[in-house]
Amino acid sequence: MRIDIITCLPSLLESPFGDSILKRAQNKGLVSVHVHDLRQYSTDKHLKVDDYAYGGGAGMVMMMEPILNCFRKLQADTDYDEIIYMSPDGEQFSQKVANELSLKGNLLILCGHYKGVDERIREHFITREISIGDYVLSGGELAAAVVCDAVIRLLPGVLSDETSALTDSYQDDLVAPPVYTRPAEFEGMKVPDVLLSGNEKKIEDWRFEQSIERTKKRRPGLIS
Amino acid sequence: MRIDIITCLPSLLESPFGDSILKRAQNKGLVSVHVHDLRQYSTDKHLKVDDYAYGGGAGMVMMMEPILNCFRKLQADTDYDEIIYMSPDGEQFSQKVANELSLKGNLLILCGHYKGVDERIREHFITREISIGDYVLSGGELAAAVVCDAVIRLLPGVLSDETSALTDSYQDDLVAPPVYTRPAEFEGMKVPDVLLSGNEKKIEDWRFEQSIERTKKRRPGLIS
Repeated sequence: MRIDIITCLPSLLESPFGDSILKRAQNKGLVSVHVHDLRQYSTDKHLKVDDYAYGGGAGMVMMMEPILNCFRKLQADTDYDEIIYMSPDGEQFSQKVANELSLKGNLLILCGHYKGVDERIREHFITREISIGDYVLSGGELAAAVVCDAVIRLLPGVLSDETSALTDSYQDDLVAPPVYTRPAEFEGMKVPDVLLSGNEKKIEDWRFEQSIERTKKRRPGLIS
Repeated sequence: MRIDIITCLPSLLESPFGDSILKRAQNKGLVSVHVHDLRQYSTDKHLKVDDYAYGGGAGMVMMMEPILNCFRKLQADTDYDEIIYMSPDGEQFSQKVANELSLKGNLLILCGHYKGVDERIREHFITREISIGDYVLSGGELAAAVVCDAVIRLLPGVLSDETSALTDSYQDDLVAPPVYTRPAEFEGMKVPDVLLSGNEKKIEDWRFEQSIERTKKRRPGLIS
């Protein structure tokens, strides 16, 4: 998989890809992530990428031309399965969308900043708009990093133990059961006896019951 | 406002706070964000912070002791309004939750990693569990950064123009109208005439209609 991210603040995306599984996935050659600085595609001598909104109002708008210059440069070398714009009013990101994107070959992600991008970019060039949740961020950079993290960890070989992702919350439409580790008792707080029983069948049943119970309480919408 | 974030991978949190509004907000003294390396609170000679899950299964679990050592050290100096755990099955983060948290004084945020933290921490010490969406990330670090970004930009004085945040998506339960900037025509694609009319009333009406229409189409749940 190849992911290209376009941003006017590339420094924001340094550390999320510089450590943890995102780094390891790249080192293993399972994915390559390329961050592109939109300012390098500006034709303005001050490397301007935004301008005032038509009709007035607070906040700057990202201009069409640098974005299109960047799209065209990248598209000359790579065919993208999706050109994604991170936007608070986009399609809601979910584990299902992460699963789906993890099966794609090449993704291009545009991060908005300020008030967002000129609508004509969204209308004519973007194939998919994704929102990581119903809240507003100062830019699409963190949102893009979130999508990449959720997608990349699903690629075969990224997690050291492949069964690990399958027991996560939201695979099977259930949230995960509680987990415990040593010591079995700490300041009077104990681990449930069943987990110490060594009885695999009982442990599996208990985890399933806990998942159901938690899902009902915390995400009733997942259970039909 | 003061925000303390506890993580076993502090390097993941360097760049989101090193640029953009999060950096400026700190420079202006409007918020201070402190990232704490959980490994420094381990009593193990290898600085271990995780261990195998009781009952078996893939994935490591974060141990109670380093977390409690860190909580207690920080709580000796600061009273926290909330001790937050980032978890995919927590309360769903929204603009409303961001608004609410922006009114608090001191927040402590614990980032899970691997399979999560020992349940006894969640049961006895966490006051609030927050999820940024129904998907699984490799850790709580990006989620914590998302919450901080959404909250910090709401603090008075952080955005250069305070009206900017008020016209964002989700304040008023509406998504934002489309935005456009120069040029008025680019490769045959035009800006809507009304935005070039100079008629403030008409522009305001058009934006409101667009917001309603988009919200109905993209987030019908917001309109009752």
